[in-house]
Amino acid sequence: MPYFDAASAAPLHPVARQALLASLDEGWADPARLYREGRRARLLLDAAREAAAEAVGCRPDELVFTPSGTRAVHSGVSGALAGRRRVGRRLVVSAVEHSSVLHAGEAHAAAGGEVAEVPVGRTGAVDPAAFAAALDEGTALACLQTANHEVGTEQPVAEVAEACRAAGVPLLVDAAQSLGWGPAPEGWSLLAASAHKWGGPAGVGLLAVRKGVRFAPQGPSDERESGRAPGFENLPAIVAAAASLRAVRAEAETEGARLRALVDRIRARVPELVPDVEVVGDPVRRLPHLVTFSCLYVDGETLLTELDREGFSVSSGSSCTSSTLTPSHVLRAMGVLSEGNVRVSLPAGTEEAEVDRFLAVLPGVVASVRDRLGAVPAAAEPALAEELVVDAVGKRCPIPVIELAKVIGAVRVGGTVVVLADDEAARLDIPAWCEMRGQEYVGVAPAPRGAHAYTVRRTT
Amino acid sequence: MPYFDAASAAPLHPVARQALLASLDEGWADPARLYREGRRARLLLDAAREAAAEAVGCRPDELVFTPSGTRAVHSGVSGALAGRRRVGRRLVVSAVEHSSVLHAGEAHAAAGGEVAEVPVGRTGAVDPAAFAAALDEGTALACLQTANHEVGTEQPVAEVAEACRAAGVPLLVDAAQSLGWGPAPEGWSLLAASAHKWGGPAGVGLLAVRKGVRFAPQGPSDERESGRAPGFENLPAIVAAAASLRAVRAEAETEGARLRALVDRIRARVPELVPDVEVVGDPVRRLPHLVTFSCLYVDGETLLTELDREGFSVSSGSSCTSSTLTPSHVLRAMGVLSEGNVRVSLPAGTEEAEVDRFLAVLPGVVASVRDRLGAVPAAAEPALAEELVVDAVGKRCPIPVIELAKVIGAVRVGGTVVVLADDEAARLDIPAWCEMRGQEYVGVAPAPRGAHAYTVRRTT
Repeated sequence: MPYFDAASAAPLHPVARQALLASLDEGWADPARLYREGRRARLLLDAAREAAAEAVGCRPDELVFTPSGTRAVHSGVSGALAGRRRVGRRLVVSAVEHSSVLHAGEAHAAAGGEVAEVPVGRTGAVDPAAFAAALDEGTALACLQTANHEVGTEQPVAEVAEACRAAGVPLLVDAAQSLGWGPAPEGWSLLAASAHKWGGPAGVGLLAVRKGVRFAPQGPSDERESGRAPGFENLPAIVAAAASLRAVRAEAETEGARLRALVDRIRARVPELVPDVEVVGDPVRRLPHLVTFSCLYVDGETLLTELDREGFSVSSGSSCTSSTLTPSHVLRAMGVLSEGNVRVSLPAGTEEAEVDRFLAVLPGVVASVRDRLGAVPAAAEPALAEELVVDAVGKRCPIPVIELAKVIGAVRVGGTVVVLADDEAARLDIPAWCEMRGQEYVGVAPAPRGAHAYTVRRTT
Repeated sequence: MPYFDAASAAPLHPVARQALLASLDEGWADPARLYREGRRARLLLDAAREAAAEAVGCRPDELVFTPSGTRAVHSGVSGALAGRRRVGRRLVVSAVEHSSVLHAGEAHAAAGGEVAEVPVGRTGAVDPAAFAAALDEGTALACLQTANHEVGTEQPVAEVAEACRAAGVPLLVDAAQSLGWGPAPEGWSLLAASAHKWGGPAGVGLLAVRKGVRFAPQGPSDERESGRAPGFENLPAIVAAAASLRAVRAEAETEGARLRALVDRIRARVPELVPDVEVVGDPVRRLPHLVTFSCLYVDGETLLTELDREGFSVSSGSSCTSSTLTPSHVLRAMGVLSEGNVRVSLPAGTEEAEVDRFLAVLPGVVASVRDRLGAVPAAAEPALAEELVVDAVGKRCPIPVIELAKVIGAVRVGGTVVVLADDEAARLDIPAWCEMRGQEYVGVAPAPRGAHAYTVRRTT
């Protein structure tokens, strides 16, 4: 049963399991105590810190363990912002950061701070010049991920780090998706990561803060983890996290190359096998194991359910699989199709045959979902209209796009279709459909009943 | 090798170990995902929450899992204070709360809030009437532990809860030390606890918030744990925590009675076996497994080291075993002797023979430490002085008290000894010595070189 959602959580690496078991017996005591059980726990903690620091590329005293990657980001952002409060209250982030960074930004804004989002291009990468331009004299902190968690695109971290250095702004790098594959590019001031993304256990994040970076931990603290992560250390899991990071790094080059080839195959074959598909993200500057594509006329939740039934566990950034009814902020920022979105992220050890079976199963699954939604565009009617209006108000993704596709053949070339829709995904998916089908997206205007009117001109 | 520091961290319960292992395989995926691995994780999480809620005595939707007991307290205090910001900014706590509560109070005070500490008597318990008197119209929250972590004394939670109810003030109960032994007394509004105190794994705390209690989580949040504990759930550990709580509860009555008898033996025998000892805490209204005593003329760190050499792991609230050079805030609040302090907290399964061996070893260990410090009081000199001054400036606990004891016999009855000391522990230990030895403590006054002059009158 292939699990293809390593970017959410990777199955526990055998080394992590082994280290966890060993340290359940050796590492349950309080490492702050002086008796033998405490000293043993302290030795384990120190060794784990050294191993993790070596993998991160920092000094052991620059690194603390947090209860999760999310908490590492939250503490890193709030501590760095507070440390530079006198400089200013501007936080600069890319528009496609992980939600933990965006949530930290929201908390900052709610407390009166300023948050500037640097947009991304269609591949999901920021432009280093645009990032540099967003840094001003009042900027306390900038945040950039090493690689995007939804589309796999690597960010130009080294160039942005150089711009930050020139502007005197510390850079927090979210390395959650990439740390198992290798160290982050140089130049960061703070770095956050999460063990369960590389096959370590849940319950462990890393926060590294370079010596000399102004940092004022926020909230109550205690004497643990240099005052940066209060609460009893989750020691067996910390030991397992450090041991598995070392282990996955030892395999990273070989395994990365192997998975990269499998992802290349998916990137190449999916558009050949499935009509009306957009593969998103940078094809080259990307994580080795992750690929995302979107399928027109498909409901993401049904697609995931059907793939799950076939034994494939994948995730989606479609609005219809989330509780918010809005598509993933990453796809929105990229301006790409969000309907029928599928993220495939291969865990280490994924077999070629599993990928082949996925490619064999996918076309039939997509076709059956499209059939069920009645998504086969009708043949053009003989009498062609000048303008048609489609009322899709109250209908959710992918219905508005399906309705549009059904009628476009019924207007003459040069004529228009107006789609009335109140689904958030339409704002993204109607322009994306136009681009994919070579039709002209004219624009959007407010319409009655809280809806919007999307105008599309038939050009082919 | 007996480990007698269960109040710091209990060794992993076999049921916790078993549940952890099982859920490493079943519970590593993201419980928010809809595919089979995610659904399996969600089932485990839901079942753990139900089991924990039943043990706590609340509804499952009132309980969230946090990364530690400390984080549960921090989130509980900040969320409850923010939820009642309009009422006022006063936080009322007992003077002997766990440091996590006091640190949360410090953060509140640093943000402009008010913190009132209710004092305790010599047994370490608050007076419910004094607690009630500290509640005023601007009180947003009150905090009280079920039982003290250093001396074992149970607090009058039910009476204080009733006073809080009458005053309309929510009560946060820190049940970290007692939850394994039974539910907290009724009447709490919020409850915090920590799994590694009952034999669960590190990395799991509980925060329960009763429906209807105003609660506004602080800091960035996400969709996990009802928005009250951000970050990927530490699921295998959560499952192990819930399973072990149920298991220790099933054994609590029998095991509690057995350990209570062993602690009674320690409480009775230590003063018989070791001269100049003060056993502290309430002898009856106390945790079953915990006892604390202090030995005059003994250096806590050396005592712990010597006991460790004999195979006994215990902890201490003496200043000379901490990095701060101040005695435990609990012993200070109680006004009891802090030097040579030993906390014995027996883990479940402690054998009678281990306790007997501890009682057999302790007198020799204390005597040897006293010998090494030259703590045997000198015989009274024939010519008795009216007043003697002892200069112990720059000397650390227990030296000032040892010096005092050495010369008290050299002043006539009615005469005085003035001890000059700059060690923080002297403020606690010199009056405690006077009480133990039946001498009169006259008072303290500032002295040169940042020291204090403690005056003692010989009465016997």
